[in-house]
Amino acid sequence: MQEQVLKGVMAELHDSAFPLLDEVIITSNLATAFKDVNYNFLVGAKPRGPGMERADLLKDNGKIFVDIGKAINDHCARDAKTIVVGNPANTNALICQHYAKDMPVSSFTAMTRLDHNRALTQLALKTGSKVTDIKKMAVWGNHSPTMYPDLRNCTVKGKNAMSLVDPAWIKDEFTPRVQKRGAEIIELRKLSSAASAANAAVDHMRDWALGSSEWQSIAFKSDGKLYGIPEGLMFSVPCTSTPGHYEPVKGLKLDDEVSVARMKKTTDELLEERKAVQHLL
Amino acid sequence: MQEQVLKGVMAELHDSAFPLLDEVIITSNLATAFKDVNYNFLVGAKPRGPGMERADLLKDNGKIFVDIGKAINDHCARDAKTIVVGNPANTNALICQHYAKDMPVSSFTAMTRLDHNRALTQLALKTGSKVTDIKKMAVWGNHSPTMYPDLRNCTVKGKNAMSLVDPAWIKDEFTPRVQKRGAEIIELRKLSSAASAANAAVDHMRDWALGSSEWQSIAFKSDGKLYGIPEGLMFSVPCTSTPGHYEPVKGLKLDDEVSVARMKKTTDELLEERKAVQHLL
Repeated sequence: MQEQVLKGVMAELHDSAFPLLDEVIITSNLATAFKDVNYNFLVGAKPRGPGMERADLLKDNGKIFVDIGKAINDHCARDAKTIVVGNPANTNALICQHYAKDMPVSSFTAMTRLDHNRALTQLALKTGSKVTDIKKMAVWGNHSPTMYPDLRNCTVKGKNAMSLVDPAWIKDEFTPRVQKRGAEIIELRKLSSAASAANAAVDHMRDWALGSSEWQSIAFKSDGKLYGIPEGLMFSVPCTSTPGHYEPVKGLKLDDEVSVARMKKTTDELLEERKAVQHLL
Repeated sequence: MQEQVLKGVMAELHDSAFPLLDEVIITSNLATAFKDVNYNFLVGAKPRGPGMERADLLKDNGKIFVDIGKAINDHCARDAKTIVVGNPANTNALICQHYAKDMPVSSFTAMTRLDHNRALTQLALKTGSKVTDIKKMAVWGNHSPTMYPDLRNCTVKGKNAMSLVDPAWIKDEFTPRVQKRGAEIIELRKLSSAASAANAAVDHMRDWALGSSEWQSIAFKSDGKLYGIPEGLMFSVPCTSTPGHYEPVKGLKLDDEVSVARMKKTTDELLEERKAVQHLL
């Protein structure tokens, strides 16, 4: 059954006659799948079933990402870049990176670009602007409902976003909507986000590969020296990039009451997730 | 329910934060939907249900496309370009065009680009080449299993395709596979082609809008002067394009036994389809 679904995906790719597509390989052999790969989009993970605890989900996915990490380490191109999309994305990425000892730590990331894009659009809709009018959006922490979508630094057509929107809207609409947008999408579609998630993964990898001076939210492994984020967590931080390298935006203030609370909440969740998979690390 | 599905589509578009997307409108009001539109992608149609005859399908869709044709005529930009994707695409396009009396006849087309792309890929896979190595593919007639995918003029890296493949492969594999690829996709996916159809519609419109010297298959209304195609049928013919205009490739030979038979078969089907909706024309 799974193989048939994949053949359907292959047929769709073939029938698109993409000028840049040379070959499609379907395999469950990790050595074949990861051979000489330059860009890893790890879009799949075991979904949360009915009655399943988050800890169970973490454990089951943990096993999957141990093997993938090893395969990346053993078979990918040495400059391979990896984005983990499958949830729990940050902690899956952490495990994956841990088992790829020979690869640069910074070559493993988890996707918060979808949250970033969602935040851009919500602010654009609210202010009657275009997403391209908005600069300096940030998403902090975990790709989960604890994330902190942060528009305090945003400008809209050069104006400070905070002067354009009501604080109550940020607290009661913007923040929860971005945080829980995944559930809203499932409610509407009876399916998880698909096109927008794929698009965000492409945005993430494109900016990483080609560079972009626009802020882009990326979850990468903390070295413990920035914004008080504990060492070793895969934590989303606003970045800019030059071809092949992302760099966190530095010097931002996070000392207001709301930011302190939100940073703590998402940090605590990531610490807890890490604890649940500690036996793998 | 339908509205909720559309809201899901809108959410996916919003969450993609596309830099060129200004606004998404969901409506069942045709005047609103078609107001000032420059590019119409008519992707929907009533699908064929169990026990439904082709004639029933034509009639039900006929009614839909009468109203859409009128709405295009009354509300779209005067340079609007229309592609009909929903099946039976050629005859739906014929009806639609008929009710848009003030628009140029050539501004209505039906999509055979998906068949064209499928044909390219099948030939590429067979000859171990890339789709971009292949020139001069053609799809003739109806977007249905009677279509004539014609590789007699094709070159692969400059070599005549007919010298690279076995005539038996063309007859027994290539032709039926391209003709019945839609059913194969449904078998694999339990759903119709989606991504590849969307991609083909974009290919079609992009080449029409921007121009391309590559052959592209387009179903448009026959003036009765070309290749013996009866006047008034929406019939796929290989074309090239300059920005805003497509032009059929002229002077091709269609007098071999196979071509004569295949052209007759797909022509007969289109004549029959037209007959089934004659009361609307």
